[in-house]
Amino acid sequence: MPENGIYLDHSATTPVDPRVVEAMALFWRDVFGNTESSHAFGREAASALEGARQTVADVLNCRLSEVVFTSSGTEADNLALRGVAWAAREAGRGNHVVSTPIEHHAVGHTLDQLHDLFDFEVTWVPVDGHGLVDPEAIANAIRPNTVLVSVIMGNNEVGTVQRMVHIGRLCREKDVLFHTDAVQVPGRLPLEPDDMHVDLMALSAHKFYGPKGVGLLYVRSDTDLVPAITGGDHERGRRPGTVNVAGAVGLATALQLAEEERVKESIRLRSLRDTLIEGVLTRIPDSRLTGHPRHRLPHHASFVFLGVEGESIVQALDMERIAASSGAACDQGELEPSPVLEAMGFSPEWGVGSLRLTLGRSNTAEDVTQVLEVLPGVIGRLRG
Amino acid sequence: MPENGIYLDHSATTPVDPRVVEAMALFWRDVFGNTESSHAFGREAASALEGARQTVADVLNCRLSEVVFTSSGTEADNLALRGVAWAAREAGRGNHVVSTPIEHHAVGHTLDQLHDLFDFEVTWVPVDGHGLVDPEAIANAIRPNTVLVSVIMGNNEVGTVQRMVHIGRLCREKDVLFHTDAVQVPGRLPLEPDDMHVDLMALSAHKFYGPKGVGLLYVRSDTDLVPAITGGDHERGRRPGTVNVAGAVGLATALQLAEEERVKESIRLRSLRDTLIEGVLTRIPDSRLTGHPRHRLPHHASFVFLGVEGESIVQALDMERIAASSGAACDQGELEPSPVLEAMGFSPEWGVGSLRLTLGRSNTAEDVTQVLEVLPGVIGRLRG
Repeated sequence: MPENGIYLDHSATTPVDPRVVEAMALFWRDVFGNTESSHAFGREAASALEGARQTVADVLNCRLSEVVFTSSGTEADNLALRGVAWAAREAGRGNHVVSTPIEHHAVGHTLDQLHDLFDFEVTWVPVDGHGLVDPEAIANAIRPNTVLVSVIMGNNEVGTVQRMVHIGRLCREKDVLFHTDAVQVPGRLPLEPDDMHVDLMALSAHKFYGPKGVGLLYVRSDTDLVPAITGGDHERGRRPGTVNVAGAVGLATALQLAEEERVKESIRLRSLRDTLIEGVLTRIPDSRLTGHPRHRLPHHASFVFLGVEGESIVQALDMERIAASSGAACDQGELEPSPVLEAMGFSPEWGVGSLRLTLGRSNTAEDVTQVLEVLPGVIGRLRG
Repeated sequence: MPENGIYLDHSATTPVDPRVVEAMALFWRDVFGNTESSHAFGREAASALEGARQTVADVLNCRLSEVVFTSSGTEADNLALRGVAWAAREAGRGNHVVSTPIEHHAVGHTLDQLHDLFDFEVTWVPVDGHGLVDPEAIANAIRPNTVLVSVIMGNNEVGTVQRMVHIGRLCREKDVLFHTDAVQVPGRLPLEPDDMHVDLMALSAHKFYGPKGVGLLYVRSDTDLVPAITGGDHERGRRPGTVNVAGAVGLATALQLAEEERVKESIRLRSLRDTLIEGVLTRIPDSRLTGHPRHRLPHHASFVFLGVEGESIVQALDMERIAASSGAACDQGELEPSPVLEAMGFSPEWGVGSLRLTLGRSNTAEDVTQVLEVLPGVIGRLRG
């Protein structure tokens, strides 16, 4: 880790919790079997995998069979979208998907490919200036040939949290499957798919102090799904490839810890976040919060600054040993205003100047103080 | 690990080398950044990732840009097949693939889905009784609309190693891309794609003492590939999702170690294997070797026994603390004769009685002696 750095990019990734590192250690050399092998080495690996699945099911309040381990949140989103879309088309149920313009690329680019290469139609329901989508607008976009609605629960770039229960209820009434990318949510907000009428939900371990390289898809029972990658019959035929047992155990351990510490930690982070937001907006002229002021992830502060370029802010903060981002991590280095901010109605002169500060377990009030001391000078110099 | 067990299932999976465990340790909490982040935490992660990629490129004697990290060999096969097939169809170059009936499910089932859901045609070129495919038969199956040939290099079930250079040369002459699933090969045979005229090649870390949950696809420069899962622009736009840096470093370290120790270890294992094969065929009546007697993976012994059922042998050996498998790990528990043995011409009465014993670093001459003492009695009891 860079010496003395303040890490304010927890929406990009998080360090692995020491308790998670410890939980995974058994699975490198001791319990190393292939879960599909029928001998003792395989059985103990399979038992550990099912233990991890039980832990996840307990946190999500769902069935064991509804938990599919994947290699990432991105792969989980792909399995949900491709899986439902291809299954529905094969069954003649339709070829139309409803989504929003503020999805993570794992959803947005997948829908683009489904459109471009596989003849699906996509309706992008607009969002308001705070990045909120109107549940009734989602419902109104549903047609007889609609097979799926996909809406990101907590936006990675601007932190807005959607009205999930409302959207889910309307989808259920119209008998259309509802998928959500909830990658930013664990440890931050309650996350039971049943409560939200969600049929499919993607998570990624490394966003909640688990390892990179493992995610999961919650899939409600009896959801018709074509595997998006094909091979062996692992994960009940929904996701092939030798299961990453260490990763599954790591994800499960991290998810349980995140949930156990969620209420206390999210209150703490929300307080730091609000200090940060108020401080930035007060001290820096021509600054605006992006995303919703109240319906937002508790660890997430995001801004635009008129007349500066986001990537320059990130680089200047980096010189001050503060790690931040300009929008989503996977778009770093791009100088265009983000499509998310465009969809929210920001003009390019505002939209290019975006900064995301996302708090986490390592952050203290001193970190926030430090940022508030440094950032006004950084913005001032960049404008000068 | 089960106490005092003899592990003879190294084609299913291997324990992680202690040096690999150590190499990964830095990446849980110290170097934990997202490789796409532009701050110091991200840069040091990206630097480690590119170091891992360089190690792989050095072993494979290829370019950095030709190495794509994936989550498994299965995902790598999917990226190769779906990627090439979809790109070719979009470009109007054709919709026909040539393969064999002895592919791993990651290839076979992917081609099935490309056929069933996406209107591709597949020609399955037969193999002989040793599981060898005739390179000329592959060449003869190529049509003007053929976009890809896919042949498994070292068969997981029966150990047969194909005439890769010959097949590759014929594909190159006909200007058709050549993919191989080489998952069983690292540490066992030379593996330079250029020498074999291979355009795409899938590997999986956990087969060569690396971690589960990471694989790679070698993709020759200028190969037109549509991403099989979609999202961010990681891995030069070919494989999205936050990169599993610990996994990539683990794979690279394991691959380098496997290559460094390959000649010495494969000679050692070949000798143990030949003792095992000769002992089994000598001591057990109505037993046959499956796969090629000479063109086979050096660690791989596979048999069929008349009048017994493979899964029963595996269970009986398990009681004796010997871990073996009946065919591929991903087919465990099935009582049908394997399609691979059927394709090689085995009748069902032979084909159901298959046993695979795959050697690795932990095995000694004493292990082989022990198996040769136990196995004849096991087969005798099952027949009695």
